[in-house]
Amino acid sequence: MSPSSPQRITLIGLGTIGMSMAALHLTRDNTIVHVFDTRPDFEQYLLKTLPNFLADPNPELGSDSSSSKVASLISSGRLRIHSELETACASATIVQEQGPENLAFKQSIWKKVESAAPASAHFWTSTSGIAASAQQQDMKDKTRLLVVHPFNPPHIMPLLEIVPAPETSPERVEFAREYFSLPGSRHRPVVIRKEIPGFVGNRLAFALLREACFLVQEDVVTAKDLDTILMASLGPRWAGNGVFESYQQGGGEGGIKAFLEKLQSTMQEVWNGLGNVNVQGEHGTEWKEKVIKQTNEAYGTLTPEQTREKEERLRDFIRAQTRTYGQ
Amino acid sequence: MSPSSPQRITLIGLGTIGMSMAALHLTRDNTIVHVFDTRPDFEQYLLKTLPNFLADPNPELGSDSSSSKVASLISSGRLRIHSELETACASATIVQEQGPENLAFKQSIWKKVESAAPASAHFWTSTSGIAASAQQQDMKDKTRLLVVHPFNPPHIMPLLEIVPAPETSPERVEFAREYFSLPGSRHRPVVIRKEIPGFVGNRLAFALLREACFLVQEDVVTAKDLDTILMASLGPRWAGNGVFESYQQGGGEGGIKAFLEKLQSTMQEVWNGLGNVNVQGEHGTEWKEKVIKQTNEAYGTLTPEQTREKEERLRDFIRAQTRTYGQ
Repeated sequence: MSPSSPQRITLIGLGTIGMSMAALHLTRDNTIVHVFDTRPDFEQYLLKTLPNFLADPNPELGSDSSSSKVASLISSGRLRIHSELETACASATIVQEQGPENLAFKQSIWKKVESAAPASAHFWTSTSGIAASAQQQDMKDKTRLLVVHPFNPPHIMPLLEIVPAPETSPERVEFAREYFSLPGSRHRPVVIRKEIPGFVGNRLAFALLREACFLVQEDVVTAKDLDTILMASLGPRWAGNGVFESYQQGGGEGGIKAFLEKLQSTMQEVWNGLGNVNVQGEHGTEWKEKVIKQTNEAYGTLTPEQTREKEERLRDFIRAQTRTYGQ
Repeated sequence: MSPSSPQRITLIGLGTIGMSMAALHLTRDNTIVHVFDTRPDFEQYLLKTLPNFLADPNPELGSDSSSSKVASLISSGRLRIHSELETACASATIVQEQGPENLAFKQSIWKKVESAAPASAHFWTSTSGIAASAQQQDMKDKTRLLVVHPFNPPHIMPLLEIVPAPETSPERVEFAREYFSLPGSRHRPVVIRKEIPGFVGNRLAFALLREACFLVQEDVVTAKDLDTILMASLGPRWAGNGVFESYQQGGGEGGIKAFLEKLQSTMQEVWNGLGNVNVQGEHGTEWKEKVIKQTNEAYGTLTPEQTREKEERLRDFIRAQTRTYGQ
């Protein structure tokens, strides 16, 4: 079946990422979304929470229109709520899980899904940390499972990291890539060639975070000032250009080669001195208390209004990324 | 003299950063900008190049209006071209250098500037790598010099890292911070508390770049796909939120503390496995050839039209950062 054909998508686990994923899939007219979660008040929770993810970017329409949108999705059969995994998976073309980040849970759920879902269904895990090759251990057909790792919030953020296990079939990788690349999709799937802890996006984020924690620990800068630095320079730069393209530009006509030659002594000095702090264990974790304290003091807890503003801003950045100028 | 008073700013070194800095200072009505550079065709070069930095964001006005803007700045005396360092500095309230990144050059230029400029003038260096404490060695009054490190292009990018040496006077640090914080300024100066190689912005950038080079070397991802990943996730996230604020949000009600607890095993695994590649020396530099080749193939050299589009996009991101929604 082609990725552009009507799909029946079963979502397992409807926490924040799951709700956002439901909103993502429901923006397509030809999907039916089956949802399953083990929380006892699941239906009420969904009716209360999903409207926030379907909210029209135009705030004047308010959340009333989103609530009635959920009711109409249910009454038209495009959104179906399940209390049993088996019935949720019975007719699926795609099963996607956003359950707990726990290897035993993942292995057990895929074993169950495999016996409940049609033999052709695609299996996607939204994990941020557990490779498909580890999750598929108890499956009979190991070619069906792959990681589709979203960035929060997936209904707005364009990236999906598609990370196959060595045993995943290339056709299933291509199906997932095409599904998120269909005309009208605002998403940008990227296939990662090898399984590696943290995949690519979080490895890059955590590399920067480690140095950020070190700089706060050493009192070079406060947590809030470091955030200002990032927002006033690298954030907008990397929203418009990747890191390699930025340095290709930075080197002028000589490109990244000239850039690396010009900056090499500062760069090597920085690389040699990067902070080797830890997040686990007893050594190198002195930064934690300072970072947590300064971050809490700077930001507290976000109000729903602040969250909405941040989502609108994120949408603006993403719109600007694809705008063509001077026409 | 207060930072909001009329300033006479002398710029030494009018390469790309210097031209952009001239454009930045000239957007204020009460500045007179003196420019000095040793290239023999300096005046012709300036007349040809500066219009690109003064270009109105509205492309319909075209570059003709920018060229005539430069002519009118010169005839009104707001922009003054010098062929001698001494006359360029003679009446300055601020002297800012963007010369070669070479310690001997910087030490020698500040010694000359100190004897040519009024005793009250502020001395700013736009260096990205040479600390003020090293540059000031041959100066009589070491309290006057500090780093004002811009991000490219400074006439658009909001960040200025202000990095004093231990001997720089706090009043001179505050003057620079206030100058770039005046009402109407689109800039965001941040004072760094300790001199450290790469300051903060480039340390964060180089920490991420090192891992990016490692991932390309290991064939986990191509240079172009890595750039797509960054632009489709971390770029727009960090344009809207710093890294600490993002994880404060990511942890929900428990904030960054809860986030670190939840993600700690993946994070530590990633930190333990970050690539230790080098940019200098013979070991760990295998990535270079691959990264340069893939980057050249992906991007080539930017056309002037592409550069203009990228600058417009950057302006859009920066405008979105300060927009208020829902009003």
